[in-house]
Amino acid sequence: MTTVDPTAASTEHAHDHAGHGYMSDKDRYLARLKRIEGQARGLHRMVDEEKYCIDILTQISALKSALDGVAMALLDDHLGHCVLDAARAGGDEGEEKLKEASAAIARLVRS
Amino acid sequence: MTTVDPTAASTEHAHDHAGHGYMSDKDRYLARLKRIEGQARGLHRMVDEEKYCIDILTQISALKSALDGVAMALLDDHLGHCVLDAARAGGDEGEEKLKEASAAIARLVRS
Amino acid sequence: MTTVDPTAASTEHAHDHAGHGYMSDKDRYLARLKRIEGQARGLHRMVDEEKYCIDILTQISALKSALDGVAMALLDDHLGHCVLDAARAGGDEGEEKLKEASAAIARLVRS
Amino acid sequence: MTTVDPTAASTEHAHDHAGHGYMSDKDRYLARLKRIEGQARGLHRMVDEEKYCIDILTQISALKSALDGVAMALLDDHLGHCVLDAARAGGDEGEEKLKEASAAIARLVRS
Repeated sequence: MTTVDPTAASTEHAHDHAGHGYMSDKDRYLARLKRIEGQARGLHRMVDEEKYCIDILTQISALKSALDGVAMALLDDHLGHCVLDAARAGGDEGEEKLKEASAAIARLVRS
Repeated sequence: MTTVDPTAASTEHAHDHAGHGYMSDKDRYLARLKRIEGQARGLHRMVDEEKYCIDILTQISALKSALDGVAMALLDDHLGHCVLDAARAGGDEGEEKLKEASAAIARLVRS
Repeated sequence: MTTVDPTAASTEHAHDHAGHGYMSDKDRYLARLKRIEGQARGLHRMVDEEKYCIDILTQISALKSALDGVAMALLDDHLGHCVLDAARAGGDEGEEKLKEASAAIARLVRS
Repeated sequence: MTTVDPTAASTEHAHDHAGHGYMSDKDRYLARLKRIEGQARGLHRMVDEEKYCIDILTQISALKSALDGVAMALLDDHLGHCVLDAARAGGDEGEEKLKEASAAIARLVRS
């Protein structure tokens, strides 16, 4: 985790904080992604140790499910913060944000 | 990658080598999985640096596709070695191996 | 397709029209779903005529992709109408609508 | 379901019967696909009646899951009959059948 000098917090960072939405749960996301990294490292080790193919496939499915879990949580946060805020602010930004989110959802559904 | 003392290669290891099928391409699998590990580490970094949510979702989709690619390659090797060999040897083993592979495929289709 | 007497249009129907969002493209959706119905009927016929298994699997993949296409279009319309409207109206409804949409997305990602 | 004049059963049909593997369960497959056809027709009706978008998405997910179920059953039958038989017969046919099955699996995983 990065250490942040609070006195140096730029406006941009403050904007990011407000805008990117997932920050309230940042530590939880980082912990989940640490586990996912561990799962990826475990896959490498399983192949290196020539584990049984089917067991490796099972781990790949588990890793994909863990990634879906993180993706859905990020998407919820994004829709619930960025997109709703943009919608409330009015103008075209809400629609642009939604178009962008829809494209991301389509990629997830197909990946 | 592990270093292997060739004089110490046990029968069991030799069996694994023949039986687990993906060994011909082991280095290629290890290289792909190293990249996947790097992608997972990159996700962690993106959240830590509070990157834009949609960009993180795009990376998650890319990581899932990379995992599907490895899974399909492993499955091909497994079907083409383990399962065909078991089928040729006759007996029930071919069917058992297939049942096991089918369950793994179903998990992949749903993950 | 239903025939609608415009003089009989109830307030409720008018509300549906505004609220359910996909109505602008209703004919297009109906045409796509007619094709999907035809694809489903074609699958039945392929099995009845004992077509080659792999060809049937290819048709199933095509049908699933067609369904994803309709789902993504519906979702876009829903987010762009219902959800944005609820968000603009203020109150908790925007968040409730989003929670509901997120659950639907999660089902799609996993199906 | 088609009615078949048993006296007219051609050699080709007999070959199909032996080769395509899923015939033992043909009635069950036809019944499942009838239900799937009904689900597709139901989707069309839901849009025609302007049902709530989220409910339609839920039905699409259910239909995709039903299709995956049929696909996995067909694939099991195919691997367990065509592919194992080809493998047992020796020669290159086993490998060709497997390559074909792998491509079908990859399409399913991605659809």
